[in-house]
Amino acid sequence: MALALGLGARGKGRTWPNPAVGCVIVREGRIVGRGWTAPGGRPHAEPQALAQAGALARGATAYVSLEPCSHYGRTPPCAEALIRAGLGRVVTALEDPDPRVAGRGHAMLRAAGIAVETGVLAEAAARAHRGFLLSRREGRPMLTLKLATSFDGRIATGSGESRWITGPEARRHVHALRAGHDAVMVGGGTARADDPALTVRGLGIAYQPVRVVCAAGLDLPETGQLAASARTVPLWLCHGPDADPARRAAWEARGARCIGIATGPDGRLDPRALLAALGTAGLTRVFCEGGGALAAALLGADLVDELIGFTAGLALGAEGRPAVGPMALAHLADAPRFALSETRPLGPDLLHVWTRL
Amino acid sequence: MALALGLGARGKGRTWPNPAVGCVIVREGRIVGRGWTAPGGRPHAEPQALAQAGALARGATAYVSLEPCSHYGRTPPCAEALIRAGLGRVVTALEDPDPRVAGRGHAMLRAAGIAVETGVLAEAAARAHRGFLLSRREGRPMLTLKLATSFDGRIATGSGESRWITGPEARRHVHALRAGHDAVMVGGGTARADDPALTVRGLGIAYQPVRVVCAAGLDLPETGQLAASARTVPLWLCHGPDADPARRAAWEARGARCIGIATGPDGRLDPRALLAALGTAGLTRVFCEGGGALAAALLGADLVDELIGFTAGLALGAEGRPAVGPMALAHLADAPRFALSETRPLGPDLLHVWTRL
Repeated sequence: MALALGLGARGKGRTWPNPAVGCVIVREGRIVGRGWTAPGGRPHAEPQALAQAGALARGATAYVSLEPCSHYGRTPPCAEALIRAGLGRVVTALEDPDPRVAGRGHAMLRAAGIAVETGVLAEAAARAHRGFLLSRREGRPMLTLKLATSFDGRIATGSGESRWITGPEARRHVHALRAGHDAVMVGGGTARADDPALTVRGLGIAYQPVRVVCAAGLDLPETGQLAASARTVPLWLCHGPDADPARRAAWEARGARCIGIATGPDGRLDPRALLAALGTAGLTRVFCEGGGALAAALLGADLVDELIGFTAGLALGAEGRPAVGPMALAHLADAPRFALSETRPLGPDLLHVWTRL
Repeated sequence: MALALGLGARGKGRTWPNPAVGCVIVREGRIVGRGWTAPGGRPHAEPQALAQAGALARGATAYVSLEPCSHYGRTPPCAEALIRAGLGRVVTALEDPDPRVAGRGHAMLRAAGIAVETGVLAEAAARAHRGFLLSRREGRPMLTLKLATSFDGRIATGSGESRWITGPEARRHVHALRAGHDAVMVGGGTARADDPALTVRGLGIAYQPVRVVCAAGLDLPETGQLAASARTVPLWLCHGPDADPARRAAWEARGARCIGIATGPDGRLDPRALLAALGTAGLTRVFCEGGGALAAALLGADLVDELIGFTAGLALGAEGRPAVGPMALAHLADAPRFALSETRPLGPDLLHVWTRL
């Protein structure tokens, strides 16, 4: 099952809206087939592992990191394929919460006389499939928030200088994190201030996650890296209902996808509506890189599932731009809380990972 | 030598203005004497180890974490004691930069025919004796700055709530850090806002470090924990030249020691003058616990030798009080920089230690 989870992780960021599943077929103690959800979400893991195993699948055991599907979608049901191949036993980590599956995959297998065991490495699988599970259960993607700051929590000097606070190792790690998510997201302020490309670079990866920019008024620079690359790398612009239709048309003509989102009383995009819309659009894992206003909105709405801090060994002082903007917390007890899950040095910087409590 | 350093560390925070030295006497592979600088700075490590060794010291080897002293101070010179005891060989980690010693201890031993080896574990000894070395070389104590913050670098909510951001394990660790320094220091704002006792509690330690409060105008609450305990635990108030003499007299009557410090053009205490005065007063290790204005002044003057961060898994937002106040940095390149020396979880919080580059 650990191997199945490892194989599934290969598809992370590339299988949405489908889960990144791994499958291993074992016969008499030997691995005869391995598969993982292919980019784009199909084929699924099981048929690929079955194809490798061929006739050796008969009587063998399949380890799958998520319940095999039971419905006809873009592919025939995997449960059926496992039955047809004559598997003797199927071990899964988790039930698929998708209402079209939800136990029916396991039931189909059992009805066909296959021994089914489930819940193996369930906790690790729930972490691996967190984005998919959230998208099915809460209709929103998993959200990872990155904060790359000085040790006093600043992302730029008062004058806006931010290149570079963290070292090359941390920046490279950020590219790997981008590649492991379906989408990279920033607020309009960051898009305007930094002119970022938001692409994965330097890792030899051809695939690019979707780029999401949140700007209630669609007031984004029409020249710059995002505009120039809108046709080659997906660019989704989330805007409010009052955004200028001419701007919207201009961005669509440039190749961007514009998504209207409800705004709150402060005129900013409502964070819950934003994530619901991204979930509807199929995203399961979103990597938010700030800035402070967007980070504060997401934290304040308790929508941040994982927090990844890169802390550099320098102080910028209180004039520096804060990593997290105003949150209007009345009391300390109202603050969103996270549990530390990892900490280690990363080049000259400190990497720390926190998970929502 | 590692044992000598370990023994020396027992005196940390209690031997000022003297260094916390350790000494081990070894004869034919067996330890026959151990000693470390006693609280208050005397007796020194060597005579205590010699007393344990007695006649066994003759021909034995002494390992000392710092060059033995060569001058008559409050105690006779240790180099002379080692010679009188008939040691065969003396191994030291570092030369004592005190101008009254500065190689003369080693020279006395060599002149008496004792084999002297120096520079053993010199780097570890330089770290252990950093406060003493700085006080002799630069006339100021070593400064450790503690920052206990939310992960967005805040030490309190906008409304001033700060109890508790970090967990009990971190707070206990802070008490241990206090005990390992000669003095605990805060700014006047923190003294006014938090009414701290600044004592070591909960560790079964009777000794208390000096408490230093920096308040240019001596505008400190005359009721509260500091005022109530000024006679039982040393309380030093650092104030500017314009502080009200009546206030000064009242605090002195309460048992506090008042130390006048030059102020800068902003009316705040000059951080270099502050540390020079504390060095003159004999302190070798100062533990600063904020608040933001004092932290910013010390960081801005590049006076922070070690930075100890406790990061809690919660976000407070930009209205929260910053751990480091305004630093008036013109450029990113001007920011004081630190190298990460340790990181680990501490209860629910993250501990990270940085050393000045």
